Amino acid sequence: MSEFPKTERTTVTRLAKRASYDKATIYSILDEALYCTVAFVLNGEPVQIPTGFCRFNDKLYIHGSVGSFYMRELAGKKLPVCICVTCLDGLVLARSAFHHSMNYRSVVLFSKPEQVTDEHELYHALEVFTNKMQPGRWNDVRKPTPAEWKATMVLAFQIEEVSAKIRTGPPVDDEEDYALDVWAGVVPLTVERKTPVPDPKLKTGVSIPAYL
Amino acid sequence: MSEFPKTERTTVTRLAKRASYDKATIYSILDEALYCTVAFVLNGEPVQIPTGFCRFNDKLYIHGSVGSFYMRELAGKKLPVCICVTCLDGLVLARSAFHHSMNYRSVVLFSKPEQVTDEHELYHALEVFTNKMQPGRWNDVRKPTPAEWKATMVLAFQIEEVSAKIRTGPPVDDEEDYALDVWAGVVPLTVERKTPVPDPKLKTGVSIPAYL
Repeated sequence: MSEFPKTERTTVTRLAKRASYDKATIYSILDEALYCTVAFVLNGEPVQIPTGFCRFNDKLYIHGSVGSFYMRELAGKKLPVCICVTCLDGLVLARSAFHHSMNYRSVVLFSKPEQVTDEHELYHALEVFTNKMQPGRWNDVRKPTPAEWKATMVLAFQIEEVSAKIRTGPPVDDEEDYALDVWAGVVPLTVERKTPVPDPKLKTGVSIPAYL
Repeated sequence: MSEFPKTERTTVTRLAKRASYDKATIYSILDEALYCTVAFVLNGEPVQIPTGFCRFNDKLYIHGSVGSFYMRELAGKKLPVCICVTCLDGLVLARSAFHHSMNYRSVVLFSKPEQVTDEHELYHALEVFTNKMQPGRWNDVRKPTPAEWKATMVLAFQIEEVSAKIRTGPPVDDEEDYALDVWAGVVPLTVERKTPVPDPKLKTGVSIPAYL
């Protein structure tokens, strides 16, 4: 399957030409973005929390403390969630205020949590999560102890009812506005990883790893 | 008032030392971030959408087409929302996998939409929105026509039931792990505005404005 099936909830109605259901496209957005927001319903009202995440195969994974209220709510009640992931790519400056826009790639996923208990899946989820933050990192770090594993809850969300929405390219103005003496174009936005700052408590003699 | 009152929903229970209810802190996060996610409940299930926004005085503003399904739902039913805004500031690489973290500043707001009908407030909302995307931009652009105003819906959300959560600084490892030969520190993350890309249809002779 290279496309996710459309459902009523994932069929983009507004600016439908920006919609994508392509699996490779959706996975590339999920694999690039460093955090997501998880929305759920509590006492009939909406709640959301931002959190790190990773994706492998057809599941999205988040993790947290077994003492976290929302992790327990999600896991215990298998609450329906809506998860959103956004990469902001540019500010689209049109000649008219009305046609200002943003270039972006976003994913909206409807799913339900399943608590991960399989040891291999747990281990792989934390490995992928850590290496997503910083490629190469997992090999270097002190791995979780049995007590740390016990304190960590991992939730998996099946990726099935999902869509992406993408805008790219220059502004689109009304025909008559192209004659205006107003500069128009795109200011690209990127998330940049800057020079690493060593921990003030770094042990003497430990040098910065090649992957940084 | 320099602090927002805590409510049951905005009292941070997990890592409470990271919580802030300080008005200036919360407004600085809202004024920096370029988009938010708006979560609401539809047929008992959670939905969220990413969208641009701005803030002035004690309200957060979003805008969209009067034809947009979710704008109409929000405005028509005054649906309770949870709005989340996040600035990601760094990857926190600890010596142990368990203590890996992120530096971030996030805001979670519970509120309800009010459709803005006052002309001055409408105009100011779009002015602030446009200048937030690109400082100085509003002066340059062709202002909305009466038809464009009619096609645009602006929703305001009172900022009152709100909290921020902030992590800064180096990793915090278990005491015995500081002796490990593992590099630890922070990889700072920034959102950068790159060199503007002119619209291929840019009118000959229009030079790039000073604010870009």
